[in-house]
Amino acid sequence: MTAEARAGFAPEALSRDAFLGGALHLLQPRGGYRAGIDPVLLAASVRARAGQSVLELGCGAGPALLCLGTRVPGLALTGIERQDDYAALARRNADENGIAAAIVTADLTALPADVRQVRFDRVIANPPYFESTGRTRAADAGREAGLAEETPLATWIEVAARRCSPGGEVTFIHRAERVPELLAGFCAHLGAVELQPLAPREGRPPRLVLARGRKGGRTPFRLHAPLVLHRGASHEKDGDDYAPEIEAVLRRAADLHFSA
Amino acid sequence: MTAEARAGFAPEALSRDAFLGGALHLLQPRGGYRAGIDPVLLAASVRARAGQSVLELGCGAGPALLCLGTRVPGLALTGIERQDDYAALARRNADENGIAAAIVTADLTALPADVRQVRFDRVIANPPYFESTGRTRAADAGREAGLAEETPLATWIEVAARRCSPGGEVTFIHRAERVPELLAGFCAHLGAVELQPLAPREGRPPRLVLARGRKGGRTPFRLHAPLVLHRGASHEKDGDDYAPEIEAVLRRAADLHFSA
Repeated sequence: MTAEARAGFAPEALSRDAFLGGALHLLQPRGGYRAGIDPVLLAASVRARAGQSVLELGCGAGPALLCLGTRVPGLALTGIERQDDYAALARRNADENGIAAAIVTADLTALPADVRQVRFDRVIANPPYFESTGRTRAADAGREAGLAEETPLATWIEVAARRCSPGGEVTFIHRAERVPELLAGFCAHLGAVELQPLAPREGRPPRLVLARGRKGGRTPFRLHAPLVLHRGASHEKDGDDYAPEIEAVLRRAADLHFSA
Repeated sequence: MTAEARAGFAPEALSRDAFLGGALHLLQPRGGYRAGIDPVLLAASVRARAGQSVLELGCGAGPALLCLGTRVPGLALTGIERQDDYAALARRNADENGIAAAIVTADLTALPADVRQVRFDRVIANPPYFESTGRTRAADAGREAGLAEETPLATWIEVAARRCSPGGEVTFIHRAERVPELLAGFCAHLGAVELQPLAPREGRPPRLVLARGRKGGRTPFRLHAPLVLHRGASHEKDGDDYAPEIEAVLRRAADLHFSA
């Protein structure tokens, strides 16, 4: 079944989930692609102020774009989403949370002319994490499209950089395994590239990274000390164990600053 | 003055320095390129056993190659060094420490046929850290050659990978700023690439990295948690403050294991 053939989500197929301590509520498909903390961390890391424009490539139901719009009011938000049912959900999520956002149903490799003619102060993405080959496909088509990479990561970065204003910033969140391709793409098209590893716990290998670059930037690459997401050496069954600064990001819409 | 025109070092121009807690003593030019802890860390990170062959590109006076030969007896060691006075010093350092090592005076871009016909189980390098452009040149020609990069880093990696046996490993130490080029080179020519950041102190940005790849390896890229070199939040004036496992590497020729 192609994305275009789907008629949107039935009401009972959706859940309504709280983000940022309840400052934002998002409808998400129960069986489809659902946001974890990754888009929330991505949104929190974006340095933006009222009046600036932001483009998200592959916005899904809108978690990163709308978390950013909640944290920084007054941004001009645009989201690109290839799957029309997710795009429709992103529009509804923006409306229901009172956030102005233009959601465009399009493939990032075939952006409509009105998007191609605009440059944005900030471009963000949380691309699919898994290559299409060599893994079991998700049973749900929307979940599969949110997880599996059909457009190469290099193309995501190239399109993001092309749509970014001179002096603007591009930020991606991705798995640590993909650091070589992330850095190759960021360094090919952007400057002042920084890599912020995110480790689940102190002393554990980073599983995720934030990559940031500035269009036209010229300062050398910077590798940051990992940010640690959880307190303690192992998972505590009862309750949250996020590190205080991550708790502030997830529950109180605080900024996520790259570490030293 | 070219390297070839120099007649070697006068005795008074050399110092004799202890490495690995006195297990190794190296003559080094007082005013030239002198080893810090970087070649010692590089040597300690190499997984090798008696009977294996090791090639070092740009071995200078021999600190990395001879630290490795001290830690793991019975290796077949080969060092390539472009500057003939440093190559002569490496030969003398090997002899005086009773370590068998073939030191070849050659540019890594023009290796002699007998080196080009051999593949090595391990290839290591501690390339010059600074690009030739945009910095003040060192007054001493040998020091300048040890610091400044005349051959591109990509070429160092390509030559290292070409000289590595199938299933063998290549390990480089370099500045964290050069991670994008390191990973581009390692991922182009090797597999199972791993990056081990080395941070001066807990929570500080890594300044150095070890990069390792296996010829023909197929496992995904791995980013490790930083290894922390020094204890405490700032430098303590009196005495060493190396972390215990780094102290063991530097003073007792212990293995340096990549972190979790």
